[in-house]
Amino acid sequence: MRIVLDAMGSDQHPEPEVQAALQASREFDEPLILVGDRQVLAPMLGSAKNIELVHADEVFEMSDHISHGVLRRVKNSMGVGMDLISNGEADALVTAGNTAGALGIGLARLKRMKGVRRPALSVLFPTASGHCVVLDIGANAECKPEYLLQFALMGSVYAEQVLGVKNPRVGLVSNGEEAGKGNELVKETYPLLEASSLNFIGNVEGKEIFGGDADVAVTDGFTGNVLMKGSEAVAKFITDRLRTEMMASTRTKIGGLLARPAFNELRKDLDSRQVGAAPLLGLNGLVFVGHGRSDGTALFSAIKLARQSVKVGLINSLREAIESALEVA
Amino acid sequence: MRIVLDAMGSDQHPEPEVQAALQASREFDEPLILVGDRQVLAPMLGSAKNIELVHADEVFEMSDHISHGVLRRVKNSMGVGMDLISNGEADALVTAGNTAGALGIGLARLKRMKGVRRPALSVLFPTASGHCVVLDIGANAECKPEYLLQFALMGSVYAEQVLGVKNPRVGLVSNGEEAGKGNELVKETYPLLEASSLNFIGNVEGKEIFGGDADVAVTDGFTGNVLMKGSEAVAKFITDRLRTEMMASTRTKIGGLLARPAFNELRKDLDSRQVGAAPLLGLNGLVFVGHGRSDGTALFSAIKLARQSVKVGLINSLREAIESALEVA
Repeated sequence: MRIVLDAMGSDQHPEPEVQAALQASREFDEPLILVGDRQVLAPMLGSAKNIELVHADEVFEMSDHISHGVLRRVKNSMGVGMDLISNGEADALVTAGNTAGALGIGLARLKRMKGVRRPALSVLFPTASGHCVVLDIGANAECKPEYLLQFALMGSVYAEQVLGVKNPRVGLVSNGEEAGKGNELVKETYPLLEASSLNFIGNVEGKEIFGGDADVAVTDGFTGNVLMKGSEAVAKFITDRLRTEMMASTRTKIGGLLARPAFNELRKDLDSRQVGAAPLLGLNGLVFVGHGRSDGTALFSAIKLARQSVKVGLINSLREAIESALEVA
Repeated sequence: MRIVLDAMGSDQHPEPEVQAALQASREFDEPLILVGDRQVLAPMLGSAKNIELVHADEVFEMSDHISHGVLRRVKNSMGVGMDLISNGEADALVTAGNTAGALGIGLARLKRMKGVRRPALSVLFPTASGHCVVLDIGANAECKPEYLLQFALMGSVYAEQVLGVKNPRVGLVSNGEEAGKGNELVKETYPLLEASSLNFIGNVEGKEIFGGDADVAVTDGFTGNVLMKGSEAVAKFITDRLRTEMMASTRTKIGGLLARPAFNELRKDLDSRQVGAAPLLGLNGLVFVGHGRSDGTALFSAIKLARQSVKVGLINSLREAIESALEVA
């Protein structure tokens, strides 16, 4: 198994990436491929074993007008990393780079998996009983019912194969739990999910997602992105407010110090670094996109997630799920 | 000024409503009108002054197939309360009843304000620096750009007139801050907001909303509803998790007790009871819809909000804003 790590993805690149690569080199036997500027990276790696450097001196820069043709050729670290996958030299890419960029380059270099209408970006939300795979969270602002059905299929496979959830409960994000609630997209998607082989539990709202009643929550990339960023912002609002209020008096300061272990547990739950990255599902290759703010811990978690996905044969399972759904349809 | 309170709206009706009415009768000089079952309510009110009972023995029951014609005639407490407004006998209605019901009955009995394409339901999110008016949060699952422009106008008037925000900053909820990000609806709405007389600050995400960078956040009713319920669920998840973790050891238990004042301050921020209700904006009459779980405190807050809105002449300000926008267009 060979994982590729984009050394130039995170906001603080390449320090977090090098830190993650060094940890991987200590903990795993197989080589990790680090893609980036060789001149910068080589001195940082010292005598570390199991790290193979592949040179790419460009960094993906966000631009609105990059065409598919250009994305097929760009020599940045993300593109070079994906080429290693499409050439069969590596099994999965981890990057903390731009999501839209990863999607665009992924579509240009790896191409869509056969039968997949649109690839989706997923994220794991913490819940009262574990995690919920939420997708799409931003790859596709406009969706059709068939896309959402495929997102549900792919999310279900991911939950089952990588997260180990048996017969994952799939919910459709809506503005009401009752069947019949929703915008046009939701109303048209509902019967498709109902008729599918999935363990569809109906419409879900925030309380089902965070309450642990669904293992997979499907939505369009616009709504999913608003939900994800809103949730992150609420969590920050609450923890910031508590921190401020804790400083208000000696009594609460002492209380806060004593209660610190409880806050640390909460932080673990909320910490995206525990999970590390979200897979782009539906490409001919595994791509995990982490937060731009990822640190070494987050990126190492992402590498572990990528390893686990390769180990269980996620790509093949996704292919089979999409193919058998297409046979039924 | 006369406020009507629907006595049969909340999940626990009529106890919370009676409690709120009694508090209003003590604190305000004008009479409050309580609509509901006279036989049930009269004994609960005792010798309270300034409460006028109007009889309505039916309670709004959620049903998918209530037609506009039926809503025009129903004798439930919500409908009777709205009739008092349309007859000029009262200035605003407060109800903790079903939102869709309030909207349906409001459209049938009060009608849309002249020029308003769709009425919107708003909510106040707590932010780092106060509140943000978010609308629509569920009245319209499918929206057009012109609806969102009107929501922005009405939300801005509400923030300025009732909440006292000068020149409210209006944001458009999107999956990215950059102009050009968004689904089709957002992309088409952006130039309308830009060309308007509003203080439009561009696209906003969760961090701008909860960070206090926007006073009004505009979105379609589907996305707004998902965002609102998601945010509530995250807040509950975090506080539940903290409560559980605080019980894990004697140390954290003591810490939690000492830190209690800090938690109480946070609870005030998050407590919808502090605000009480969200206005339906765009009807010929003021209707405030509270949570079904509202207690007496929440409903009393809602009455205060309704009073403030009447006092500043919210309805006229909304009419003027819509009219002058239509003249420009």
